[in-house]
Amino acid sequence: MDIDKQIVAEIEARIGAKNVRTGADAEGFLEDFWGRARGKTLCVALPASTQEVSEILSICFEHRIAVFPQGGNTSTCLGAVPDGSGRSIVLSLSRMNRILSIDPLDASITAEAGCILADIQNAAAGVDKFFPLSLGAEGSCQIGGNVSTNAGGTSVLRYGNTRDLVLGMEVVLPDGRIWDGMRTLRKNNTGYDLKHLFVGAEGSLGIITKVALKIFPSLGHLTSALISFEDIAHLTAFTEPLRRAFDTSIIAMELISGSEVRIVKTMMPDLNIPYDQNVGWFLLVDLVSDGQGDIADRLQEVLGDAMEGGQITDVLVSANEAQRAAIWKLRHSVTESHKKYGMGMSHDVAVPIGDIPRFIQAAKTKVDEAFPQADIAIVGHVGDGNLHYNVIFEQSRWDAISDQPQIRKNVYKAVYDIAADMNGTFSAEHGIGALHVAEMKTYKSDIELEMMKGIKALFDPHNIMNPGRVLPG
Amino acid sequence: MDIDKQIVAEIEARIGAKNVRTGADAEGFLEDFWGRARGKTLCVALPASTQEVSEILSICFEHRIAVFPQGGNTSTCLGAVPDGSGRSIVLSLSRMNRILSIDPLDASITAEAGCILADIQNAAAGVDKFFPLSLGAEGSCQIGGNVSTNAGGTSVLRYGNTRDLVLGMEVVLPDGRIWDGMRTLRKNNTGYDLKHLFVGAEGSLGIITKVALKIFPSLGHLTSALISFEDIAHLTAFTEPLRRAFDTSIIAMELISGSEVRIVKTMMPDLNIPYDQNVGWFLLVDLVSDGQGDIADRLQEVLGDAMEGGQITDVLVSANEAQRAAIWKLRHSVTESHKKYGMGMSHDVAVPIGDIPRFIQAAKTKVDEAFPQADIAIVGHVGDGNLHYNVIFEQSRWDAISDQPQIRKNVYKAVYDIAADMNGTFSAEHGIGALHVAEMKTYKSDIELEMMKGIKALFDPHNIMNPGRVLPG
Repeated sequence: MDIDKQIVAEIEARIGAKNVRTGADAEGFLEDFWGRARGKTLCVALPASTQEVSEILSICFEHRIAVFPQGGNTSTCLGAVPDGSGRSIVLSLSRMNRILSIDPLDASITAEAGCILADIQNAAAGVDKFFPLSLGAEGSCQIGGNVSTNAGGTSVLRYGNTRDLVLGMEVVLPDGRIWDGMRTLRKNNTGYDLKHLFVGAEGSLGIITKVALKIFPSLGHLTSALISFEDIAHLTAFTEPLRRAFDTSIIAMELISGSEVRIVKTMMPDLNIPYDQNVGWFLLVDLVSDGQGDIADRLQEVLGDAMEGGQITDVLVSANEAQRAAIWKLRHSVTESHKKYGMGMSHDVAVPIGDIPRFIQAAKTKVDEAFPQADIAIVGHVGDGNLHYNVIFEQSRWDAISDQPQIRKNVYKAVYDIAADMNGTFSAEHGIGALHVAEMKTYKSDIELEMMKGIKALFDPHNIMNPGRVLPG
Repeated sequence: MDIDKQIVAEIEARIGAKNVRTGADAEGFLEDFWGRARGKTLCVALPASTQEVSEILSICFEHRIAVFPQGGNTSTCLGAVPDGSGRSIVLSLSRMNRILSIDPLDASITAEAGCILADIQNAAAGVDKFFPLSLGAEGSCQIGGNVSTNAGGTSVLRYGNTRDLVLGMEVVLPDGRIWDGMRTLRKNNTGYDLKHLFVGAEGSLGIITKVALKIFPSLGHLTSALISFEDIAHLTAFTEPLRRAFDTSIIAMELISGSEVRIVKTMMPDLNIPYDQNVGWFLLVDLVSDGQGDIADRLQEVLGDAMEGGQITDVLVSANEAQRAAIWKLRHSVTESHKKYGMGMSHDVAVPIGDIPRFIQAAKTKVDEAFPQADIAIVGHVGDGNLHYNVIFEQSRWDAISDQPQIRKNVYKAVYDIAADMNGTFSAEHGIGALHVAEMKTYKSDIELEMMKGIKALFDPHNIMNPGRVLPG
């Protein structure tokens, strides 16, 4: 038996042959969710416990076999599928999907890493609490992946990134040892805070097997407001008064360009989106109303100056849950509309919050000049300084381009350079995966990369954990 | 010239002789603020810039001279003064005390590490913003120290620990290289989040020289409520409804035992504290009121069931700022009263929030049995699960104890063991310093210590940064 077959046999012996997939049975784990990449692997291992994860990693550590951890395989940046070497295993957490405990008095929930995000949201709701992490893939992404990638989503403004929701974790280190960091303490100043190293490390330092998370009081009545305005330069003129007046009552603050509305209306006419695509911009604001006073009145009052000054042109306030859902339908239909429209290059940038208008203006000047065939369509968590800045070529225009790979490269570089010039970032919430390793080299300082590589070598001396991801070689 | 003199001369050459203190001029930097410890040093260096810090560290790195960074020297756990070896320097950040920028639109402030905390609070207030970190030493502690120790304080419940307020930082590494991590981004998923390693590292991995911090909308009108109750077992029965009803409107939630009230009234009679020392417990709650509806009415409503059930006996609500200040005066007088009362052993423990009553009951049983001469006095940030659990011997009783060091040791161990049994911690917000290094060995797992030591060796291979602090040898 050759060594590779022996390794698979060893893993089968530890976790049971039916939990090790090879050949056609492994197919579903090899291809990226978005269909952009496809890898090879010796086998896909589906452990059922931390102990089994530990045993698998011990085997891989001994034989120097690469391990590609996989959660829900919803990574936007090729972080969840194996590379093409074939001398690797995929370790899927999907069988480790239990909620372990939920304690309303401690305001915490613990779960295995393979637990689906929506299941955690529901478990919290079941005890009249709220788990705020919310994103498009919540029905299939796994909490271990959310924590490993420090996922963002629509509630960051009030509740922070996933990092801010993590109280503790259990991690299997690359050599198979288990770190039990499953605490639910809000305060614990006893040495370096190791959990923050694993949050956002994208599985490159070890495999998170359990997490302890904060849960919060249930939200009261939510109201959505859709504010129309023409000139992006006016954005902060009315978002500042909103923040001052409503403070933590603001749950989400999302920017949507009129061009996005046009694309959604064109590509998904059945949705009957009622908003005018000729409006320059929309700001979608979600507010918790405390039931005291009419929120529409209070909004009008806060936005009064901006209304009078013509800086905003309209404010639509949801009167019931159906109207609120209708407003959010626009936001949630963006990704699918883009796919239908043509070839989109999405940039997940962040800049200092106050510089959002300046960034949008500078990027438009650059894109209009360098890529006149492209449309610009923007959605973004603007309250956090995070924009999904899309440069989209309508399909026939894209097909007419001869050197597509070069154009693609040029578009990305043009937009990232502008963000970098503003002390911004090329990856705000999506992470690095295999897709952005080159940008790490371009945009991170040498000393920063050196510190990261030192940490990687310390935790994963044989470079078996998610090799080729996160850090440049 | 011997080597030690040469090192001092080299430092003088770089930063100017008048900024290097030796002999009597160094005295003020050698003694712990609380008078518990006193160290020796070759000199105290007072650099004025990051570049100067870098040059000093390069010299110390080359000659393997220990560096003890010092901020406001307000550490509660001997983290800010040099050890007794004498082959070290103290590096005081106190001349690097400038606010560098404040940007209301970006909701950020940047400052040098030696900036006094109160100056940052004031700068934020100056642009109608709020910097929430608040603690007893705020008039003299420095922000670099706050960040290095991940300071807690009274606003953690709503705003988090210092860690949660940090957006970016600049650090001089032990070999003198400078890491510029001064960003103000809310989201930046580009590799390992290095700043979280330095937050709470107590200067053992490098010296933080600048920080970028979040600022927030100014707080509205504050109301304080003092809730009286007899049985600690009832605590969560009324704090849960409070949290559910007021959610992020709660800024602080502080527990004060009746025994604390007695000690404050006895030791500081001039304060004329009006609260009844025979009440078992007080819960001090700070609420931001939105100006809509009378907060006393809403409190009565929320606490109605607990009032009727006799779980709470009284609710006092501040009607104006003077009454609010009077309520907080009790809380703020605790530390000074303890000093006057006798020998106190303070435990900065945290346990899961819901376990606070169980912890208090278990600890009382143990302390009453093992140390019948002692009083128990408790204040704590109970909303975060953090208690300052004080075992105090009235002075004459303490003097009568023959083996004081052993009793002291036994008291600490008794209380920490109970916290540890509940998956709690022996240092919630105060950190480790030189004082709690032994507890690190006792209460942290081997694998955790090994990971921390690996990180320490990676960043500080010659162990020159704050040696003997944080980690056991």
